[in-house]
Amino acid sequence: MKKAIVLLSGGLDSATVLYDAKAKGYKPHCLIFEYGQRHNKEIGRAKRIAKGAGCSFRVMTIRLPWQGSSLLDKKIRLPRRGKMRAGAIPSTYVPARNIIFLSFALSCAEAAGAQAVFIGANALDYSGYPDCRPEFFKAYQNMARKGLKAGVERKPIRIHTPLIHKTKAQIIRLGLKLGVPYHLTWSCYKGGSKPCGECDSCRLRKKGFDALRVKDPVVP
Amino acid sequence: MKKAIVLLSGGLDSATVLYDAKAKGYKPHCLIFEYGQRHNKEIGRAKRIAKGAGCSFRVMTIRLPWQGSSLLDKKIRLPRRGKMRAGAIPSTYVPARNIIFLSFALSCAEAAGAQAVFIGANALDYSGYPDCRPEFFKAYQNMARKGLKAGVERKPIRIHTPLIHKTKAQIIRLGLKLGVPYHLTWSCYKGGSKPCGECDSCRLRKKGFDALRVKDPVVP
Repeated sequence: MKKAIVLLSGGLDSATVLYDAKAKGYKPHCLIFEYGQRHNKEIGRAKRIAKGAGCSFRVMTIRLPWQGSSLLDKKIRLPRRGKMRAGAIPSTYVPARNIIFLSFALSCAEAAGAQAVFIGANALDYSGYPDCRPEFFKAYQNMARKGLKAGVERKPIRIHTPLIHKTKAQIIRLGLKLGVPYHLTWSCYKGGSKPCGECDSCRLRKKGFDALRVKDPVVP
Repeated sequence: MKKAIVLLSGGLDSATVLYDAKAKGYKPHCLIFEYGQRHNKEIGRAKRIAKGAGCSFRVMTIRLPWQGSSLLDKKIRLPRRGKMRAGAIPSTYVPARNIIFLSFALSCAEAAGAQAVFIGANALDYSGYPDCRPEFFKAYQNMARKGLKAGVERKPIRIHTPLIHKTKAQIIRLGLKLGVPYHLTWSCYKGGSKPCGECDSCRLRKKGFDALRVKDPVVP
């Protein structure tokens, strides 16, 4: 069976990608990152999602001791509705986050003999992070081919971004078809007892469910 | 003053790069990685080298819990003299090591407003690791431009590999000119009380000092 490393955050997108990888015939191993995110509640959800899907997982703890992101530093306010400039990269941006996560995924994939890495990035209903765009993944794939033994030996590890060109509604439609347990997923950056409904992540999620006229199971 | 992040291992190459960055007018901040390497003796040396150069530093601890590299797993024998096939990648290869180290360096550089990252890779007198070759760094640079806010805002962080086309002798000649304290550097993979003289790293180092007819200060 083909092996894949799946980056699993506990959010809606990565849970969908996990089920998509399974549907495509891969045996996924999930990497879950504990990186000081303010909504570390998502980690518990990621574990439950991996277990529910019958997949092995590993929680990787990494420290990014440098400051500046409102996703890592509770002293910085999260951007509020309507306060973001169009095209601007919001303060929740964590420098090189996907670059770091993918680098561990490549290392794990190569050590495990996995042929694929799956990541739930998408570049339509997203926060404008540069490391979620198709041109980034294309460049990352090329770099991985040059920097890994697997690439030199002509068995490159392929990075899959199955959601990259999908809207949030299309992602949810796919996930509902695949049986993704959306009641277990967590998206809100605030990580409170219930979603705040105001942060970027809540708003993108709401947009998707609303477009499908489906009730989001995590919203009371 | 221009800021740079320098990847400092405690070995001969990265120490030379640190002094080279200073000579080029950068204010370096050193990242030292504790990643489960069998020769973790190098970490103490790296700290002393950074302090001696008057530079700030940070030790980053990361875990690569997957197996397969003789540099991480003491149960696997290190390759011995003459036992390596030409062109083969030795068992000391750690999957995605430079990819991971550079990803943290990019994150740190962006958070700190540094314009440059320095790494002491070289592709002449080296162990054949794919992530030490010029084509890898070229691809890495391109990926960094696409995946960072700094790249999108047209102030890309430049990755400097000043040793990439130098022989070990040329590196040492440069370092001696710059006043690199080679007596503090540690290269041996075994990490014993004195260098083993047999591992790849010892042999490459010896080749360099021998070619210059200079005595290596760490060899008794």
